[in-house]
Amino acid sequence: MKFQAPKGTRDYYPAEMAWRRYLEAAWRRVSLRNGFEEVEGPIFEDIELYKVKSGDEIVSQVFHVTRQDGESTFGLRPEFTPTLARMVAAKANALPKPIKWFCMPNLCRGERPQRGRLREFLQWNIDLLGLDSPAVDAEVIFTCVDLLRELGLTPEHVKVKVSHRETVRTILAKLGVPGDRMIDAFNLLDRQAKMEAEAYTKAWVELGLDSHKVERFDQMCRRTYRVGDVAHLERSIGGEAIADLEALDKQLSAFGIAEWCEYDLGIVRGLAYYTGTVFEVHEISGAERAIAGGGRYDKLIELMGGPAMPAVGFGMGDVVLSLVLGDKGLLPESVTDPVDAFVFAAEESARPMVSGLVAELRSAGLHARMTYKTTTNVGKLLKEAAQQDARFAVIVEGDSQDNGKVSVKDLASGDQSRVSLDDLPERLR
Amino acid sequence: MKFQAPKGTRDYYPAEMAWRRYLEAAWRRVSLRNGFEEVEGPIFEDIELYKVKSGDEIVSQVFHVTRQDGESTFGLRPEFTPTLARMVAAKANALPKPIKWFCMPNLCRGERPQRGRLREFLQWNIDLLGLDSPAVDAEVIFTCVDLLRELGLTPEHVKVKVSHRETVRTILAKLGVPGDRMIDAFNLLDRQAKMEAEAYTKAWVELGLDSHKVERFDQMCRRTYRVGDVAHLERSIGGEAIADLEALDKQLSAFGIAEWCEYDLGIVRGLAYYTGTVFEVHEISGAERAIAGGGRYDKLIELMGGPAMPAVGFGMGDVVLSLVLGDKGLLPESVTDPVDAFVFAAEESARPMVSGLVAELRSAGLHARMTYKTTTNVGKLLKEAAQQDARFAVIVEGDSQDNGKVSVKDLASGDQSRVSLDDLPERLR
Repeated sequence: MKFQAPKGTRDYYPAEMAWRRYLEAAWRRVSLRNGFEEVEGPIFEDIELYKVKSGDEIVSQVFHVTRQDGESTFGLRPEFTPTLARMVAAKANALPKPIKWFCMPNLCRGERPQRGRLREFLQWNIDLLGLDSPAVDAEVIFTCVDLLRELGLTPEHVKVKVSHRETVRTILAKLGVPGDRMIDAFNLLDRQAKMEAEAYTKAWVELGLDSHKVERFDQMCRRTYRVGDVAHLERSIGGEAIADLEALDKQLSAFGIAEWCEYDLGIVRGLAYYTGTVFEVHEISGAERAIAGGGRYDKLIELMGGPAMPAVGFGMGDVVLSLVLGDKGLLPESVTDPVDAFVFAAEESARPMVSGLVAELRSAGLHARMTYKTTTNVGKLLKEAAQQDARFAVIVEGDSQDNGKVSVKDLASGDQSRVSLDDLPERLR
Repeated sequence: MKFQAPKGTRDYYPAEMAWRRYLEAAWRRVSLRNGFEEVEGPIFEDIELYKVKSGDEIVSQVFHVTRQDGESTFGLRPEFTPTLARMVAAKANALPKPIKWFCMPNLCRGERPQRGRLREFLQWNIDLLGLDSPAVDAEVIFTCVDLLRELGLTPEHVKVKVSHRETVRTILAKLGVPGDRMIDAFNLLDRQAKMEAEAYTKAWVELGLDSHKVERFDQMCRRTYRVGDVAHLERSIGGEAIADLEALDKQLSAFGIAEWCEYDLGIVRGLAYYTGTVFEVHEISGAERAIAGGGRYDKLIELMGGPAMPAVGFGMGDVVLSLVLGDKGLLPESVTDPVDAFVFAAEESARPMVSGLVAELRSAGLHARMTYKTTTNVGKLLKEAAQQDARFAVIVEGDSQDNGKVSVKDLASGDQSRVSLDDLPERLR
């Protein structure tokens, strides 16, 4: 072949597209019933927009978009949140609050393609802006769980790992990290999985912790705590540090999703802009990358030139989710649009009627197909109708033109009867 | 504001997004009932792929996509057909024939934004491959008409202007254009609208036509001919030239769309790759750019490294279509997802129950909302329920926890009754 799809992108043939639409329909259904409205934005943005949120680091991952004449440089969107923040900032006063938006954009990142990570992927985004309370954080996490459950996943398959930046900050301050090194401490925490143990400990020592304290903090992070059981956490960390988590704890229980969630102080999310609750959804064995991740980001709208506005949200990509669903045997069988009628002529003289009849059925809203073969062999044509999973075969005969009737065969029951053309659409419905 | 959407792109706030989804739903519904299956492809492709189909000319309109390290250059897709041709070529033997695919991609072109033309837009694509007959051309045109009718347009609003490359070629050859200048002649014909009359005539003379013949050809092109009335065309052009159009004529009538179509030899479509039938949909006054355009392109799959395979298809953008629908008063009122239940507490003590109840209703598939206000004033809360167009208000009372019952108010009829929590989802459905 002369050409292939670019590395890390996908061709969606009908079967793959049906799966994509199945997933998007679930994202949409869950979004709507949770009270979110859909938005979308441009496929590329001023590249500076991405720098404002994520710093220069992100730019190395962004595909640059330029016109041939070298006009201003854009970035192919690597995430949707900067667009959302720009849109909210532009109409902040006119939009009714709270703002509850969802979106299902395709995103592009120039990273090395690998398991769970592609160069073009889909991401479901849920964002709730204008309110700041643990109840709102819990509602957003509930929406995420509602989707996981909708696709057949259970708390035995996946867990929402929850943490709170303020709780972690309080603990780190208590252990001795100075305020001006806190960002470095969060970055270190986020990089832990990619570091050698020795280098990791050494980095903490440079941030002001002795090796005993590093060990103590490490134990806290390695342990998970169940929702509704914050007493355990309190004993190991100290009461005032976990006030934020305690408030969230009550709300997660109120939304009935305690068994889906657990606290994991090792979850900090790399992005500098999170300000409070943070969470990630992981397959329970930890075998895959995060299925979803998000949290509270109360400073971003202001950063984009809008008013101060609290915000919480998450993104869920399609790639890891599909791997996990496949692994659990939860991918649906390919769903195709049911064919209402397969129309053919049983005699040569009836053939000129077929396309007009098919046209009428389609205009009446029915999914009507016809044979593209030249045969009038009824047996062969009924076989073709069955191959196409049609509900009915509509057989046009030599006298159909004169008497205005065709034969209709129910391909499930085998029943066949003559139906007048006027009654045909109703009969097929 | 610090940032704006890039020139020629659009922000879709919920109202705009609802319109986009309305249009996409119509495209999808009509595609499926006409027997087409959905496909998709990457947002960018090897830029050479676009050159193969459309020559170097297109490259000036394509946004270039590069990684920061300057790795191979991609193009942000300006059209979908090259991707489709690549996908078909890659699996040509495995795919059942005919191949009937549709797609609704966003496309990007670096042109100057103006009325009817943006830098990012949506385009419905319909393609039927593997068959070559006037009946198939007519089915594709029918599918286009089926969509126009679905959105409320009539033959009084829009017309499908049909031509045939072979017919035009035969006429031009008869008039004296040499075979090796035929491409130039088609390009000239396509540029006519943008040229001064004198320069246009002069260019024809250079292609071998005297001014009398230019005038005669011009008259043919300026005149439209009705479907089912090819005799007129025959008299003015000569029988053998219109054999292709005659065959198509029969099929357009068979599909019942004669009144939507007319022949217009001035329609050639600029793209070099069309080989037979070509057509464009225009608003009847000619005030706007083409709503849709397409035709037969029998050489493309081979050009992409696949086997020889006949193909016919069209693209319909969202921008001109929306302008025309708006002009005719056919834009629907904004459609929002109906809210099944608006849940609130009538007493402070009932408030902790609300989020759990909302969570249960949502998981049962109902669109449930709640108040984010702290009031328990029933009058105010019923007003908020009405503002959100909820079907029912669900009122949690102080004794709901104990007796397992809530009050349900039908906001249309005003009827109110107590319902047990177990029966609530069923009652709201």
